[in-house]
Amino acid sequence: MKALIAGLGLIGGSFALALRDHGIASEILGVENSEQHAAEALKMGLADRIVSFEQGVAEADLIVLATPVDTIPLMAVKALNRVNDRQVVMDVGSIKSELCEVIAMHAHRGRFVAVHPMWGTEYSGPRAAQRGAFSGRNVVLCDTAHSDPDAVARIEAIFRALECPMVYMDPEEHDLHTAYVSHISHVTSFALALTVLEKEREERHIFDLAGGGFESTVRLAKSSAATWVPILLRNKYNVLDVLREHIHQLQIMRRMIERDDAEGLKGLMDRANTIQRIIK
Amino acid sequence: MKALIAGLGLIGGSFALALRDHGIASEILGVENSEQHAAEALKMGLADRIVSFEQGVAEADLIVLATPVDTIPLMAVKALNRVNDRQVVMDVGSIKSELCEVIAMHAHRGRFVAVHPMWGTEYSGPRAAQRGAFSGRNVVLCDTAHSDPDAVARIEAIFRALECPMVYMDPEEHDLHTAYVSHISHVTSFALALTVLEKEREERHIFDLAGGGFESTVRLAKSSAATWVPILLRNKYNVLDVLREHIHQLQIMRRMIERDDAEGLKGLMDRANTIQRIIK
Repeated sequence: MKALIAGLGLIGGSFALALRDHGIASEILGVENSEQHAAEALKMGLADRIVSFEQGVAEADLIVLATPVDTIPLMAVKALNRVNDRQVVMDVGSIKSELCEVIAMHAHRGRFVAVHPMWGTEYSGPRAAQRGAFSGRNVVLCDTAHSDPDAVARIEAIFRALECPMVYMDPEEHDLHTAYVSHISHVTSFALALTVLEKEREERHIFDLAGGGFESTVRLAKSSAATWVPILLRNKYNVLDVLREHIHQLQIMRRMIERDDAEGLKGLMDRANTIQRIIK
Repeated sequence: MKALIAGLGLIGGSFALALRDHGIASEILGVENSEQHAAEALKMGLADRIVSFEQGVAEADLIVLATPVDTIPLMAVKALNRVNDRQVVMDVGSIKSELCEVIAMHAHRGRFVAVHPMWGTEYSGPRAAQRGAFSGRNVVLCDTAHSDPDAVARIEAIFRALECPMVYMDPEEHDLHTAYVSHISHVTSFALALTVLEKEREERHIFDLAGGGFESTVRLAKSSAATWVPILLRNKYNVLDVLREHIHQLQIMRRMIERDDAEGLKGLMDRANTIQRIIK
């Protein structure tokens, strides 16, 4: 099988490695706007050739859209305009409602499968690509009822080979839950980094005292604006809703600390502890 | 050397293992109020014997206070009341101002060394104790000018053996910076867990979608109230100060998302990214 990956960054690059390592793709074509990224991707073996999007769509059996989420809907339409009924187009983006709405009435809608593998790191670009990245991680498939059964089966076979448990949701449900579970974590991590950078004029102290839990909560603050500005803005209403609730929870804790309310704080922390039933 | 560890939980238990593994203590006495924890600690080899605090202080060369921070100042006074000029008392608590103030005028102040090893996990109790916990992590020593030189030298020799770089601060400076770098991370993590538990009535979705960064930002929400309520309340003014700034940063991000201010968000994220210069 010949695969085209548009966007050879963290996710696209890791997916290219997975397709190759599992013997799923015999040839991988890549689309990369950045010359530097194109050179890195070729050097790392993420693609055999860099091609134009049009050329890649004409050649590939599987077309994977792995660019920032604000660019995916139009690329999906452009890809669907050119595919025949044996080609499959998928994306790996973090939000789905706008995408699924834009392609809903396309004559070739059936050739598209909306996919979100639940894996990522705070790094970006081809050099962030990792072998074995998706293995064992859940993958969400959205709106599969609107995809042709053979296209869905093709995608399911790929993720079965990668040993990814598959979860099925509609796009609105997906965007709501990813706001809660993924997007808000990035917002708080960015804000925490900004807080500490604002308050700690002497960076040496941050360095000296790291180890107190800071690294894990601030890790995601290293994530790139190119990826995350579009995600937050394209999932705006869900993100704002959960962000309002988060600020509210912080204000409750603040008032309890102000009032030395040990019992109240204990109650909140005990309840927060129950998250370990869900997250190991 | 004979060591007494008061509180054989995460930190005290791990310190007991370190003292034993490095051949620093030939015998370890433990103080544990909880019968279950005492039994677990003996079974795990964290202590050779469980003793009363008074008995332990009478016997030990080194007395280590590893109980919740609200109990440390009075225990420090009670230990200092009984020690001779060859014994050394240290704590491993996360806040220092109140402690150092309480013991400031004690006739045996010189026998106390205020210590904060910058290591921890979200787990608690004897079973959370880990071998090699402190190795290579920074350790903060506070107000060493008020400790006897031989007592400081004894503590420095221990942390040199554990390969911990030593950092010297005054207690107020320590409490301010740990509020920024450690305590606020716990507050945001608790609040994030509460937010998601509040919004996500279906826990299955949290589980299905984890992998999007949530685990690392929410990890500290598993931390125990017994440890963290006293830390937040005893470091109240510093914690409130940094919490106010954090809520302010979140409100700035919220307003930018509301206004679709992509440039503004990019600016904030680019600035947040600079945290990687400091935290690897």
